Amino acid sequence: MAERILLAHGDGGILTHTLIQELFHKYFTSAELATLSDAAILPFPAPTNLLAMTTDSFVVNPLIFPGGDIGKLAIAGTVNDLAVSGATPLYLSAAFILEEGLDLSQLEKIVASMAATARAAHVKIITGDTKVVEHGRCDGMYINTTGIGMMQPGIHLGYDKIQPGDQLLINGGVGEHGVAVLAERAGLSFSTPLYSDCAALNGLIQDLLARFGASVKFMRDPTRGGLATTAKEIALSAKFDIWLKDEQIPVKDEVRGACELLGLDPLYLANEGKVMLVVDAQKAEEILSFIRDYYEVNGLVAGLNPAVIGEIRSGQGRVLLETPLGGTRLLEMLAGAPLPRIC
Amino acid sequence: MAERILLAHGDGGILTHTLIQELFHKYFTSAELATLSDAAILPFPAPTNLLAMTTDSFVVNPLIFPGGDIGKLAIAGTVNDLAVSGATPLYLSAAFILEEGLDLSQLEKIVASMAATARAAHVKIITGDTKVVEHGRCDGMYINTTGIGMMQPGIHLGYDKIQPGDQLLINGGVGEHGVAVLAERAGLSFSTPLYSDCAALNGLIQDLLARFGASVKFMRDPTRGGLATTAKEIALSAKFDIWLKDEQIPVKDEVRGACELLGLDPLYLANEGKVMLVVDAQKAEEILSFIRDYYEVNGLVAGLNPAVIGEIRSGQGRVLLETPLGGTRLLEMLAGAPLPRIC
Repeated sequence: MAERILLAHGDGGILTHTLIQELFHKYFTSAELATLSDAAILPFPAPTNLLAMTTDSFVVNPLIFPGGDIGKLAIAGTVNDLAVSGATPLYLSAAFILEEGLDLSQLEKIVASMAATARAAHVKIITGDTKVVEHGRCDGMYINTTGIGMMQPGIHLGYDKIQPGDQLLINGGVGEHGVAVLAERAGLSFSTPLYSDCAALNGLIQDLLARFGASVKFMRDPTRGGLATTAKEIALSAKFDIWLKDEQIPVKDEVRGACELLGLDPLYLANEGKVMLVVDAQKAEEILSFIRDYYEVNGLVAGLNPAVIGEIRSGQGRVLLETPLGGTRLLEMLAGAPLPRIC
Repeated sequence: MAERILLAHGDGGILTHTLIQELFHKYFTSAELATLSDAAILPFPAPTNLLAMTTDSFVVNPLIFPGGDIGKLAIAGTVNDLAVSGATPLYLSAAFILEEGLDLSQLEKIVASMAATARAAHVKIITGDTKVVEHGRCDGMYINTTGIGMMQPGIHLGYDKIQPGDQLLINGGVGEHGVAVLAERAGLSFSTPLYSDCAALNGLIQDLLARFGASVKFMRDPTRGGLATTAKEIALSAKFDIWLKDEQIPVKDEVRGACELLGLDPLYLANEGKVMLVVDAQKAEEILSFIRDYYEVNGLVAGLNPAVIGEIRSGQGRVLLETPLGGTRLLEMLAGAPLPRIC
């Protein structure tokens, strides 16, 4: 096989076939994919007959960053969008736009990372596509993943379930993905290394829903726009105010330090392994313990710090941040300081 | 709203929201999309409990060409991949990668075209994504569509159904999409204009399967690589030879003329509104009449010329083209003459 991607790898002929058979099929090994037909055909075993679907294109720069790469991100991101919707992720498609001249060994590394992430998250990659564009019309590669999940019976998450008094939780520190990618892009390194939090959350979320059911009212993963933008979206859609307590929002010391140096606010930085949960106040502490235990049992204790970060109150969709000195700051959606190509 | 795409349209903040609400929601109006949540949740009404899934990224250059545009292509292409698999297309996702500086009026034109094509094909666009990359890291826009279909009971298409003696049909002239795009890219115009055949085929195919059932053994849409590459893929997978009759393969005069001028072989050019069908020999003429009638009834008679173009015979996966003078030519997959960014 050639060592670099050629335009002819995307023309649907001999080289496209070679690429699919020698590279993609080496890593993506589900039986459904092997038929090379136009569409994959699979059972949809939904006891609820409700299907969830989500799509994301990934254009992160650089392709590989501390804690992850565009392939891991493409699987985890789509799995997480299904999981926070209350669905069990089942099937993923993977579509590649490759830049002419891309090193095939780099493509292989990323495809292997996708396969490993999908396996660990118990989702199948069942269909795919490859296009090639001229050198300078892409940036190495862009990946689209689209996911299908099955809604679990008895799960009813929604903005309409949110009530004043409900507590807002997060499963760990914020800003880790955003600052790791931006620092890598800028060529900065720190004495305490920064790592993206990129991870599939479906295992945690499914166990949590199975255990706490209707006490979990709503979930979102605070990716682009960060915790602040996601909180604002929840407040606007639920038509309540959200009061956040600044000193309760977990931010790792190294993230806070790097953010100060780079002039970034961790509340607006993307996360790729975090979930914000709106829960019944009476169950909040129990859910926190459950999350802590889940990570401990799975050997993922390092740096984990789930927390109650705020509360839902009557109001019209504002997000207010209570500062340690007793002041309040109104948080709006990310605006004016674009953070492009973070995912 | 701004007149051009800015990097901040992709950062997940205020401008991303404005773009979604003021442009995408103006055209993509299904109730499921309006919730702005991470995943769309929909009923999966499958009587067979079998789901079909397909994905395609579209990178065609130019974005608008005679007979279509990247938006129409993105809907029709994915609908067709589901339809030829025997599935009824239900739901589509649409994910955009936009180039910084893209004219918003051009984006709107293409989004409107997608909405119109989806409506005509009776599929719903239910979830989406928008990313923005720096000027020079894309070429206007790339679009991924991923589709979900429901398998109809009693439909069993497959390579394993193909038998020697079966006839190979096509629903009309070949090479029209490929030559229209390549001529437009080269800035050529002809006295008889060339038009892409880009069209959703699910209406025709569903009616055809309902009427002829198991007499239709296999279908493929000959897109990238054209009729010849698709025939070779069928021959290799079915493990039979395919004998094509050159003078029976429909090629419009203007397509043949432009191909001669440009040094292209219409058998290797992409089609975006064509389906190749392997059918029971006893039903071949009846199926041809059915296709002709379908197009006439739907007012699509112009230029339509469905034909029996070949036959399945015992063999090891060769494709042989019988020429009018009695010779035979061995056809292989497209190789060596890349035709990039045709879809």
